[in-house]
Amino acid sequence: MECQDYGLNRNIERDNLNLNPLQRGGVLTKEARKALYEFSDGYSVCDYCAGRLDEISRPAIHHFLDDLAEFIGVDQARTVHGAREGKFAVMHAICKPGDTIVVDGNAHYTTHLAAERNQLNMVEVPSNDYPEYRITPESYQEVLDYQEDYGEDVSLVLLTHVDGNYGNLTDARAIGKIAHDHGVPLLLNCAYSMGRLPVDARAFNADFVVGSGHKSMAASGPIGVLGLKDEWADTVLKLSKRHAVKEIEMLGCTSRGAPVATLMASLPYVIERVGRWDEEVQKTRDFVEKMERIGGIKQIGVKPKEHDLVRFETPVFDEIAEKHPRRGFFLYEELKKRKIVGIKRGQTKWFKCSAYGFTQEQTDYITRSFAEIVERYK
Amino acid sequence: MECQDYGLNRNIERDNLNLNPLQRGGVLTKEARKALYEFSDGYSVCDYCAGRLDEISRPAIHHFLDDLAEFIGVDQARTVHGAREGKFAVMHAICKPGDTIVVDGNAHYTTHLAAERNQLNMVEVPSNDYPEYRITPESYQEVLDYQEDYGEDVSLVLLTHVDGNYGNLTDARAIGKIAHDHGVPLLLNCAYSMGRLPVDARAFNADFVVGSGHKSMAASGPIGVLGLKDEWADTVLKLSKRHAVKEIEMLGCTSRGAPVATLMASLPYVIERVGRWDEEVQKTRDFVEKMERIGGIKQIGVKPKEHDLVRFETPVFDEIAEKHPRRGFFLYEELKKRKIVGIKRGQTKWFKCSAYGFTQEQTDYITRSFAEIVERYK
Repeated sequence: MECQDYGLNRNIERDNLNLNPLQRGGVLTKEARKALYEFSDGYSVCDYCAGRLDEISRPAIHHFLDDLAEFIGVDQARTVHGAREGKFAVMHAICKPGDTIVVDGNAHYTTHLAAERNQLNMVEVPSNDYPEYRITPESYQEVLDYQEDYGEDVSLVLLTHVDGNYGNLTDARAIGKIAHDHGVPLLLNCAYSMGRLPVDARAFNADFVVGSGHKSMAASGPIGVLGLKDEWADTVLKLSKRHAVKEIEMLGCTSRGAPVATLMASLPYVIERVGRWDEEVQKTRDFVEKMERIGGIKQIGVKPKEHDLVRFETPVFDEIAEKHPRRGFFLYEELKKRKIVGIKRGQTKWFKCSAYGFTQEQTDYITRSFAEIVERYK
Repeated sequence: MECQDYGLNRNIERDNLNLNPLQRGGVLTKEARKALYEFSDGYSVCDYCAGRLDEISRPAIHHFLDDLAEFIGVDQARTVHGAREGKFAVMHAICKPGDTIVVDGNAHYTTHLAAERNQLNMVEVPSNDYPEYRITPESYQEVLDYQEDYGEDVSLVLLTHVDGNYGNLTDARAIGKIAHDHGVPLLLNCAYSMGRLPVDARAFNADFVVGSGHKSMAASGPIGVLGLKDEWADTVLKLSKRHAVKEIEMLGCTSRGAPVATLMASLPYVIERVGRWDEEVQKTRDFVEKMERIGGIKQIGVKPKEHDLVRFETPVFDEIAEKHPRRGFFLYEELKKRKIVGIKRGQTKWFKCSAYGFTQEQTDYITRSFAEIVERYK
């Protein structure tokens, strides 16, 4: 049989300034590119495996997991295929079908999917209203009190540390404390934080944390991180009865390939960049200020920004689209002419973007480009 | 904090002849190496996603999945993280905790793990005795008849198409027929076959097949294939109630990164090499004959070989180890001097190996090397 042409190139995204927040934190380091080359063949990290991926010494996955655990403040760290697979594993290990979990109203869709796949009931902690959509400890307190008052058990509290819609940073420490006061463990979804900003599970009162290598840790996907406290190891990292060294929830081994090598190669850089998080926040605030100064552009979510993911409402572009011969496509096309990509074709009412990892010059070029487009067509 | 040195190189395995059967089928094509470069950054295949990984048109994942489905004889194909994750998903979708499944006695440990994670009971179909360890349709018939006679429901029959211990090829078609006669669907684990030899799920009477990209499809791990008949799509590919386009068992999307791009890039080559499977079998039979001619080396498993994975009992090396100053390490070290790797350090009683993908010259060099080592120390 003849295969079709799959168009396996990515020149546009590699050669241009990509504003997609999903992709800003996953750009590989040169060390990770080298690791990808070294470990590209299938099952490449398994050369010296004695039965446990997390104990492989060549490459030194065991040392890496120790370093990673220290970096994120957990007792035990494992790699999983991504944050969603980590959430599923925790829920699967500690909940039964029909159990209730409490999640924030800004939770990622994969939190819902992981719960649905585990047949769990979700009680949602609402955010406050437009335009902030803030998740507060008080709302968690209220929901957990209600559950307690009505004698409804909660098996797990989940909090999205930074959500993917508004880039709001939540108060994990306070919410973790509230969960513990109600005798419920906290799972913190750090897909948009771990690898960007400091994550310390102990300080956050989190029993479990998940992170995403491809989203925020300069790694090639699919790869994620699952961290936990020792007291949960017997449950979540339970060993098989039949294959005594294999962890059931990991199906034995998870990241049997190149992605884990890229995560390992990038870790020193990731640790270093997390130390510079304040600069990224400052750059984002400047970026927002310059964008809003254009007029007809408004940042949604908590202000001032505490994370690089920014959601803008952009009535100015929507008005232009109404009269522009290319209609809604004009913005994508105008940006692309200026070598800026990452905002969906046809989208003009609002968009999400991020300048994470860009230099100040690049960021200024981006805001100038938006200003130019407005000036030209308004 | 300071990271340790993780030793992220793989020169030895890349520069030498690697006999590890686990790795023979996962060596990348040059097209896959290029795809790895293009799609190395995290979340790289998601540039043009409209919500469904399997429907992405750039790169053309949707066309690829159509081609793949045709290639393996299924109605629907998805990528998963590996064969084990595919098995887990099928069991999770169609079985309930406490259900009974029937599996072959040569099943991979990940079959047991997937069942254990799903809290399923396993009834095993024994192989025949040493040295063949053959799995027969008659034994499946017997076990399924027994279950039926005692009124014990079976939710799923699983068969390992080619097992990883002896490299025995089973009669999927006959066993699939028997499963269907008992009203039970068949899940065929093709981790060691799909991408090496022709797999036609329809002809094999398989309702589900799983394959492994990193094991047998010239792809960078972790990546696997799940194929199924349309009649099971509503169950296994069930959509989320809340997120109407997302498939629950896939947690929305699975292979969000470079591995799927490598699998796509290698497919044309994989299709072509599967067409040359007879040559590989012939080469394996010659290899076994030459190895056995050395003396003190005996192939275990079904004879003549119908798959490249070969298990040898090697009393000759065990005898040498008793007297050799390097004891059990001598074989590994002697092979390494000859630029041959992939047999575990210290192992002399028996080993598994494969010459899959090697040229006849390379294969002859390998058998000559073993003969030389015996001659020198015996």
